[in-house]
Amino acid sequence: MSDRILVTYRLRGGEKEIQPLARKIAIEQSVETPESVITPEIEQRCVGQIESVNAVPGIVENYDAVLSYSPEMLSRQFNQLLNLCFGNVSMYQNVRLIDVTLPKQLLDNFDGPLFGVDGLRKQLGIGKRPLLATALKPRGQSDEYFADLAYQFACGGGDIIKDDQNLIGDFESFKSRVNRCTQAIDKGSQKSGRQCLYFPFISAPFEHMDKYFEYVKSCGVRGVLLSPLIIGLDTARGLARKYGLMYMAHPAFTGSFCIENSHGMNYEILYGLLFRLAGVDISVFPNQGGRFWFKEDDCKNISKALAKPMGDISPAFPCPAGGMQYHDLYTMCSWFGQDAVFLLGGSLLEYSGSVTESTRAFREKINEYFPERRFTSEENEFKSACEISSGDSASLRQVLRFEDYQWQGRKSEVYKTTSELPFQGIRRVELIGKSGEKCSFDLRYFEIDKNGYSSLEKHEHTHVIIGVRGSGEVIINNITHPIHANDIVYIKPMAEHQLKAGNDEVFGFYCIVDRFRDKAQAPH
Amino acid sequence: MSDRILVTYRLRGGEKEIQPLARKIAIEQSVETPESVITPEIEQRCVGQIESVNAVPGIVENYDAVLSYSPEMLSRQFNQLLNLCFGNVSMYQNVRLIDVTLPKQLLDNFDGPLFGVDGLRKQLGIGKRPLLATALKPRGQSDEYFADLAYQFACGGGDIIKDDQNLIGDFESFKSRVNRCTQAIDKGSQKSGRQCLYFPFISAPFEHMDKYFEYVKSCGVRGVLLSPLIIGLDTARGLARKYGLMYMAHPAFTGSFCIENSHGMNYEILYGLLFRLAGVDISVFPNQGGRFWFKEDDCKNISKALAKPMGDISPAFPCPAGGMQYHDLYTMCSWFGQDAVFLLGGSLLEYSGSVTESTRAFREKINEYFPERRFTSEENEFKSACEISSGDSASLRQVLRFEDYQWQGRKSEVYKTTSELPFQGIRRVELIGKSGEKCSFDLRYFEIDKNGYSSLEKHEHTHVIIGVRGSGEVIINNITHPIHANDIVYIKPMAEHQLKAGNDEVFGFYCIVDRFRDKAQAPH
Repeated sequence: MSDRILVTYRLRGGEKEIQPLARKIAIEQSVETPESVITPEIEQRCVGQIESVNAVPGIVENYDAVLSYSPEMLSRQFNQLLNLCFGNVSMYQNVRLIDVTLPKQLLDNFDGPLFGVDGLRKQLGIGKRPLLATALKPRGQSDEYFADLAYQFACGGGDIIKDDQNLIGDFESFKSRVNRCTQAIDKGSQKSGRQCLYFPFISAPFEHMDKYFEYVKSCGVRGVLLSPLIIGLDTARGLARKYGLMYMAHPAFTGSFCIENSHGMNYEILYGLLFRLAGVDISVFPNQGGRFWFKEDDCKNISKALAKPMGDISPAFPCPAGGMQYHDLYTMCSWFGQDAVFLLGGSLLEYSGSVTESTRAFREKINEYFPERRFTSEENEFKSACEISSGDSASLRQVLRFEDYQWQGRKSEVYKTTSELPFQGIRRVELIGKSGEKCSFDLRYFEIDKNGYSSLEKHEHTHVIIGVRGSGEVIINNITHPIHANDIVYIKPMAEHQLKAGNDEVFGFYCIVDRFRDKAQAPH
Repeated sequence: MSDRILVTYRLRGGEKEIQPLARKIAIEQSVETPESVITPEIEQRCVGQIESVNAVPGIVENYDAVLSYSPEMLSRQFNQLLNLCFGNVSMYQNVRLIDVTLPKQLLDNFDGPLFGVDGLRKQLGIGKRPLLATALKPRGQSDEYFADLAYQFACGGGDIIKDDQNLIGDFESFKSRVNRCTQAIDKGSQKSGRQCLYFPFISAPFEHMDKYFEYVKSCGVRGVLLSPLIIGLDTARGLARKYGLMYMAHPAFTGSFCIENSHGMNYEILYGLLFRLAGVDISVFPNQGGRFWFKEDDCKNISKALAKPMGDISPAFPCPAGGMQYHDLYTMCSWFGQDAVFLLGGSLLEYSGSVTESTRAFREKINEYFPERRFTSEENEFKSACEISSGDSASLRQVLRFEDYQWQGRKSEVYKTTSELPFQGIRRVELIGKSGEKCSFDLRYFEIDKNGYSSLEKHEHTHVIIGVRGSGEVIINNITHPIHANDIVYIKPMAEHQLKAGNDEVFGFYCIVDRFRDKAQAPH
């Protein structure tokens, strides 16, 4: 296996145009500069190398060009993978991205699915068979309607119910729906004796995303539906991971990348490889035969790309959808096998007068291919959706009572656990920031014993210090300033600084710092 | 002007197929459900209405279908605009999004450019002429090389220098480049007597984005280059706005949306309308005649869409690029006019032996069309990038001496200048944050007179409060907590809160808040 990044494009053109086109792409995607500016060292370190150019058998004027890049070019990040393989070349006609192969050691830079196939099965407590999913729709119906639909689907033994991606309103309507549907699904799950999972759809302005995620966590919800091409592939990955949620990806806004053979990228690259590397647990795509034009092979290739061995990256579920009907289920079983999620929305709603009955009927249809005896029921592992706690919030308090320079619920800690920089006689109290408070800064209290001092250091982040107990001094760039209670000190970026107590008095002070900050460095 | 959202698609097909296809899209994009499930009320409230279907003159089997949606369907958010106009239909063949018109009252839901054409001119202190921009490239060169290139470009009187979008490394390499180039450009600006702006490229994992933005802010950088389709359109908007930065959009990963006439969307929709609504100040796109295939009309249409009147949304700069040469400048002036940024990267690098000389030559070429006398040089307004403080640097101090609840160099101000929310007897002292301190939070001191109180309010941002003088009380969601000196209070997002002094004692406290925060709202 090559230790370089291999990127394959299908190029359309006359035989003589192909090598120059491959070279043009190799430069466009790496250094984007005229040939005259490329030094031999840059050529070797940065520019793509043409590994091979071969005519595609049976397709006139089509060639597959394999380019390779140094692993350094990936810069260990997903966004750069998109840029390197498809950034500017997305604007090239007659060039289609058809394969990307990453060396094993680079795969470690990607999260991949947080749950994946095995993790999701564990959450549901069921064995090897395709999962049945449906959607809460249509937009315009009431929360009561959706809650009842969710309840009935759970009663019928359905596995996953997601919001329709059109269910977008304000935060209050979101909370109302999520709250009601979570409870309804839980009730339905209790009745059926099977776990059903709810994946609300989150779409919100960037500024409010956290609020939505926090709310679903507070309801015990364990998965979400996101539109990665709308909110950004890495944004979606980061949010799902930040909140420890299963992540189903909706294909809204994706079609242009794949729909036309002469440009863009292969279906399995987008809905398979890239979605999987970007943490998608369930990749929804329109199946052949529904309302869209994806072909059988495209769908099967997506499924394969989600499953194939890829370092430590977990496999993810393919989720064929887009107008699938009851009578499609058997074919879906044969195409996608046991590790798939079958999403049937509208057809399930209109199949019979009762959603519970429809769900049962659809499940039984799946069981014709994957008989029920293959299930592992694991009922002892069953947990209601509402019992899953969102984490330890015991230390998040509204008021921290002060008494003798201690605060209720906050312990004194050592100043630093490891440091090459000397210090003496300090305790620290993490007041705000380590207990889940939603602010961009941390508030700490430090107290220096008589004759003690903090390490002399510098860093990019600033300090704001407020004198509290006794008095002491701060030394900033070799100038000493005495500090008494309520004096305020601002230490600017990279200023060398140190705090000291005197010979006969303890010196205590608050220190406020940015939540995201660099590490301290030794001076000079 | 319609009070509904108007969305126009160009449809390809036989005459009889067009009406059913328009209806299919109207359902797909709104409720995505079988006809049988659509009630009359949902039809009226949610489903798109077909306003018109007309054959396109001169193009066989092409029809323009105008659909309209209730304003409610937009749900006041940008992500839903993408979903509503192009979510699932992105996966339709023979359907191209060619126009979107929003009613005036809906435009208020979009930020648009934070600076726009006028704001950017103000930053540069120059009058009406196209701006000259270049790129730091190629990847693989040293920071010294880039700093020298930046210095020379600034010396030559260039306006904007951006990172190449391939300059992606780790955080340390980012800091090193940004730091050196900022200083070099500042030095060059001093020498030329003109302001040159630097736009570093930010691409980072979601988890680390803030770190990068905070760093560029700490360097005094005033603009960034982002790839909106890679990190997400609304993510890019939100980050640029959070940090108050000018935002140049790179078209990496965008091409598939526009490149093929039979699907996707028109160039001016993506690089014009959508980028502008999503806060882009400068929209980079490949100009006709360079390394890409964008046509003259497509480029002109992008430019028009960025400029046309659109409620209170500011116009943004078109930035034709992608292999432009010295000899293209005259044509670019004639196509794009004075409100444009001309980006010439590689061609400027290889034009002459000296980047300073090349820059001068390129600028003079622009001056042939827009003579230098059209400039407003405003040299008295010139400020070096390093001198631009985010506040008044005279008030930036290392130590603020405390005496009797006043601080040296800080005045007491009124609590609020305008508010519909009642309050009584409060003074405020802005201790840290308004004087150019580089931190992500503000520290204020508030003092409430006997019987006084702050307004009862709520907001998304949190408060951290530290009792200082006397004692008082905080009321959080109708529960009262007494507060004494050094008690710490955390007020979580959207909690209703108020602070009060008692009958016989003044109550003073520190309050720490995020630098970038929402406005207070009335409770209930």
